[in-house]
Amino acid sequence: MPTVDVHTHMYPPALMSVLRDRKAVPYVRLFPDDTASGERLVILPAEESGSTARGRPIGPEYYEVSEKIKFMNTHNIDISVISIANPWLDWVDKSEAAEMARVVNDDVERMCREHEGRLYHFGTLPLSADVEDVVGEVKRLKSLKFCRGIVMGTSGLGEGLDDPKLDPIWEAIEEQQLLVFLHPHYGLPSEVFGPRKGDYGHVLPLAMGFPLETTIAVTRMILSGIFDRFKDMNVLLAHSGGTLPFLAGRIESCIAHDAHLKKEGKIDGRRNVWDVLKKNIYLDAVVYADVGLKAAIDASGADRIMFGTDHPFFPPLDEDEDKWLSVTSNMSAIKAALKDDKAKEQDILGSNAVRVLRLNP
Amino acid sequence: MPTVDVHTHMYPPALMSVLRDRKAVPYVRLFPDDTASGERLVILPAEESGSTARGRPIGPEYYEVSEKIKFMNTHNIDISVISIANPWLDWVDKSEAAEMARVVNDDVERMCREHEGRLYHFGTLPLSADVEDVVGEVKRLKSLKFCRGIVMGTSGLGEGLDDPKLDPIWEAIEEQQLLVFLHPHYGLPSEVFGPRKGDYGHVLPLAMGFPLETTIAVTRMILSGIFDRFKDMNVLLAHSGGTLPFLAGRIESCIAHDAHLKKEGKIDGRRNVWDVLKKNIYLDAVVYADVGLKAAIDASGADRIMFGTDHPFFPPLDEDEDKWLSVTSNMSAIKAALKDDKAKEQDILGSNAVRVLRLNP
Repeated sequence: MPTVDVHTHMYPPALMSVLRDRKAVPYVRLFPDDTASGERLVILPAEESGSTARGRPIGPEYYEVSEKIKFMNTHNIDISVISIANPWLDWVDKSEAAEMARVVNDDVERMCREHEGRLYHFGTLPLSADVEDVVGEVKRLKSLKFCRGIVMGTSGLGEGLDDPKLDPIWEAIEEQQLLVFLHPHYGLPSEVFGPRKGDYGHVLPLAMGFPLETTIAVTRMILSGIFDRFKDMNVLLAHSGGTLPFLAGRIESCIAHDAHLKKEGKIDGRRNVWDVLKKNIYLDAVVYADVGLKAAIDASGADRIMFGTDHPFFPPLDEDEDKWLSVTSNMSAIKAALKDDKAKEQDILGSNAVRVLRLNP
Repeated sequence: MPTVDVHTHMYPPALMSVLRDRKAVPYVRLFPDDTASGERLVILPAEESGSTARGRPIGPEYYEVSEKIKFMNTHNIDISVISIANPWLDWVDKSEAAEMARVVNDDVERMCREHEGRLYHFGTLPLSADVEDVVGEVKRLKSLKFCRGIVMGTSGLGEGLDDPKLDPIWEAIEEQQLLVFLHPHYGLPSEVFGPRKGDYGHVLPLAMGFPLETTIAVTRMILSGIFDRFKDMNVLLAHSGGTLPFLAGRIESCIAHDAHLKKEGKIDGRRNVWDVLKKNIYLDAVVYADVGLKAAIDASGADRIMFGTDHPFFPPLDEDEDKWLSVTSNMSAIKAALKDDKAKEQDILGSNAVRVLRLNP
């Protein structure tokens, strides 16, 4: 059975040319005062200033498919299910959104076709377009040979994923049996990390802001009853659910003790967090330690966890490293969490993805 | 061996009379337009308005020690280590802080003396006073017969617990061998919970804001090197560490991949998150499910986890319930996480607290 990476990003050339033309976040630029750093990708407003360098270096590993294949070969990854990284197409002007989504998704599909058997993808929705255009793109994505789902941030139509206006989109996604890959982008407001956050590089927003954004988003989805209305919708949560496996007990306890929810009759007769974790949610294994991974397995089951790398983010600081620490630590976590259960190890490394995403290894 | 509750709050009468005199948060008041609800405790600015009722009802279970003993007897809890709940004394005017801390701490000590053998406590510091006065109260607390540590929020002197100005206070705490009980208060800014947060009662801020506040605070302490400077300081983290056990792997991975920290020479030669979890941190068992509790045990060891209830918060919604769901779910989680290991079960239920806090059962 193959090893499958379900959390791995690319900016297809069609999107790169748009990002290079832009002057506001998100954009890609060669800064005249710092040409030595090469092109830089700025995807968060906070990355424009502050104690650290603007954005991050962006090289061919972000946009050249040959680099993805090379990375896969180095790490013995047979199949990658690629997705655009944040901020997807949330920022596109309404008038251009539907067309841009088609162009970008077709470009990703082309990459997969050129490496048939090695690459599949999660498409991207034009969420700033009219809802019917979004629904149209959902249906079109289903018709693409290598598309297996949809990568999505947490903003929805601008008011979060618990917005009832999203219902026609969820309905189409459920009907087309596409997996939603829910991925954070905005993190938390920087003031929550305190006045010395700059001393700690990007650690606090990356390590805590992102996972919390995911946890809040999916909990809002659960509390708003989305998984009661769309019982067959499936969501893959980035970073092993953010912190959902660990906080699920506290969330359910807070629900059970909430006078407002009781008054509204919202405590009983719902699909609770544990139900959703076992019926609607899949978790990637991008959690970098066996402690977290075991909690993910305990919460959702070893048949619902899928290996991922987050490539090309988290490259080794030492450029002559061959294998990436961010990959090997996630692989070691799987071995450590499952001890000697080789069958379950293989499930997480690839078999679950092959089954859930209907891949042809 | 006894069952010991290390996470249980009281507002001593000396503090209640101050809170009843106040007109700004935090305060206790009978609202003239809603006398039917009885006295209410408002401890967060956000509780003054919004879709839900102002603050929470506050009855004798918050300030009468006989109610604590009754609760303990109902749940077979032999010893409680009581602490004031948030917001402690952070809000007190500088000129009054040192004296108020002495009065309040002495009142809590009196409660323990009146129930010798059943009650111990964590004292409270006058953090708005001069640092030497804070240090003075640390030393005085050590001389109180029933005091075993210090309860503390995350603001420190106003700039967080990674503020180097706190060093003389940490030094005194380490020297006096008092355990710091780190407890959240402010949560996260309400906008992170989205425009529909009111539909979900208090679930999102309670279930996610509090644990994240704790996680961020302790991670800032670790990153600032506090546990390298004060290697023998011990901290008990509320709510099983917030989310620290689950996120520890990601935090360490973000550190290992941070170019800024590498440039500053801050990646190697430090006590890392896993070291701190096993050498400086204790975790309460207030996590409401075996999934989270197992992660806490995996991260810190079963000899570093201590049972707690969070009483008198999270009372049953059904007033005729005898045993509290918030207590029984935490007790069940211990049994479920440890399967049939009765010895470790007893460690978490009480033996660890007896050993670490030098209690006399």
